[in-house]
Amino acid sequence: MPTLSEIDEIKLENLSVEEFIDKQVDEIRSVVGDGVAINALSGGVDSSVVTMLGHRALGDRLRTIFVDSGIMRRGEPEWVHSVFKDLGVEVEVLDAHSEFFGALKGLTDPEEKREAVTQTFYKTVFGRAVRESGAKYLLQGTNYTDVEETVAGIKRQHNILEQLGIDTESMFGYKVLEPLIQLRKSGVRRVGKALGLPEEVYNAPPFPGPALATRVIGEVTPERVATVRLANFIVEEELRGSGAFQYLAILHEDRVTGISGGERDFGQQIEVRCWDSTDAVKGTPTKLPFESLERLGNRIATEVPGVVSVTYNITTKPPSTIEPI
Amino acid sequence: MPTLSEIDEIKLENLSVEEFIDKQVDEIRSVVGDGVAINALSGGVDSSVVTMLGHRALGDRLRTIFVDSGIMRRGEPEWVHSVFKDLGVEVEVLDAHSEFFGALKGLTDPEEKREAVTQTFYKTVFGRAVRESGAKYLLQGTNYTDVEETVAGIKRQHNILEQLGIDTESMFGYKVLEPLIQLRKSGVRRVGKALGLPEEVYNAPPFPGPALATRVIGEVTPERVATVRLANFIVEEELRGSGAFQYLAILHEDRVTGISGGERDFGQQIEVRCWDSTDAVKGTPTKLPFESLERLGNRIATEVPGVVSVTYNITTKPPSTIEPI
Repeated sequence: MPTLSEIDEIKLENLSVEEFIDKQVDEIRSVVGDGVAINALSGGVDSSVVTMLGHRALGDRLRTIFVDSGIMRRGEPEWVHSVFKDLGVEVEVLDAHSEFFGALKGLTDPEEKREAVTQTFYKTVFGRAVRESGAKYLLQGTNYTDVEETVAGIKRQHNILEQLGIDTESMFGYKVLEPLIQLRKSGVRRVGKALGLPEEVYNAPPFPGPALATRVIGEVTPERVATVRLANFIVEEELRGSGAFQYLAILHEDRVTGISGGERDFGQQIEVRCWDSTDAVKGTPTKLPFESLERLGNRIATEVPGVVSVTYNITTKPPSTIEPI
Repeated sequence: MPTLSEIDEIKLENLSVEEFIDKQVDEIRSVVGDGVAINALSGGVDSSVVTMLGHRALGDRLRTIFVDSGIMRRGEPEWVHSVFKDLGVEVEVLDAHSEFFGALKGLTDPEEKREAVTQTFYKTVFGRAVRESGAKYLLQGTNYTDVEETVAGIKRQHNILEQLGIDTESMFGYKVLEPLIQLRKSGVRRVGKALGLPEEVYNAPPFPGPALATRVIGEVTPERVATVRLANFIVEEELRGSGAFQYLAILHEDRVTGISGGERDFGQQIEVRCWDSTDAVKGTPTKLPFESLERLGNRIATEVPGVVSVTYNITTKPPSTIEPI
């Protein structure tokens, strides 16, 4: 990653989208030449835009990998595959459920859980794909804010090659391309729109890298992910039209008393968060109409097996954070 | 406790308050004679009404004990003492903090926690007071609904003498008086008003016997009780005027990420519940204005040390219950 002073930020008002796309496509072509490049697509806006730029530059010489970690949202791997298929891009989906759940087994500390997901993603699964592909060029969706936040110590430095398990010796010959590094998220969204991405992609609310693993308090097991996945699906369905910045469901580890089938049941609790924010630095809970809250509570408690209680977060950020982990 | 068919329920519309009071006072006098009676006062409506009836009948020959368990609400022991002092009743406050926290140490199972509080209250603390007092007459606030719910299996049968650790042999000679057994809560409230109790007592929202121990998920320690006590104080202060049936704060065991002093902090979460209900059998979350929710969230996260996150429960009962434990 370059330092901030080495990057010529393109502010939104100076962004000429078509010109930017042409320039980046030319740049990728000239660097990769007749080589092969590879990238990881999460379905988020940054990696989606990089996929489109890379594909426009290299066609089939860009291999795009989607890691199906087992901790994605409902239908997400199939949806990402089909969105890009419609755009003429064949995405390779790698099933890595057992590797992720194996790495997460027994972990309850949030930092250890995040680290397990990151390591499994880069070193185990995507790293292996890179090494086996023979590709020497890596396309990465790093944007200007990522660099800024790394400098500020908010984000951890991601040395992508190190993360891939490529040590200094064998690193020789690898090259990382970061075509979005001059743009902030708003610029990336605009480029994504011009590249023909559907609005659900270029305007997607933020979603964390460690996916639903950050939405489970305590151990991340296939069963617990299935619970939070269904709750999260309901939250997204109910709040998509709310205009909120971000909305999410969290599965708690604490058990609370409830009643199911007329019997006392020591059941699970889902917490819903819905944020108003412009930049994720500060946030306030969205003032949802009480009917929406009631509907959310009823749907989640009725439709998600094992859940007897639903809460809505009413704290601002700070002192809260957007995600619970 | 008598069976339901042995009790002649007095319905609210047939309740002549002054007549009822005179009759119960006479009954207590005639049973106790020139003996000494004892009762435990929690500050709730039932035990407060019994205290007033017993005092009217027996004067100083009724010893009224308030067990200060260390898991009461903020200022509650002092408040109860002073309310009754103003009514001419001297309440004996027994400090039993170390006994309750000793019994609760290491317990996380909700049933075990409830049982520890009940055992410590009756057997250890109040039982000792009864035995040492030499009183042979026990006044108890059992009401008609308590008997009904015991029959229905909703409430556990409370054999008060057994709970006091008074076995069949030494039980000889003890007599339990239950002057409220023909009334439901609404009738008890009316009698309380006529006896001169302040409205905060005769119209008090329900509060569970095991007190703040039911509001702490996980181990009940002095520190954790202090946290939920302050949160609960804020909730009561903010929602007293809401007209809601019951409102409470719960301290969770799950930790969530927050920010305090500019630093990432893995902090505590408080859940607020506020119920609309007529009978506690069914309940819906009170439709509080969003400004109240925001104010609650901000006050609790700001004023309660260690708390970074606040939620509001949005589930109906069923499938939720009123209390979390």
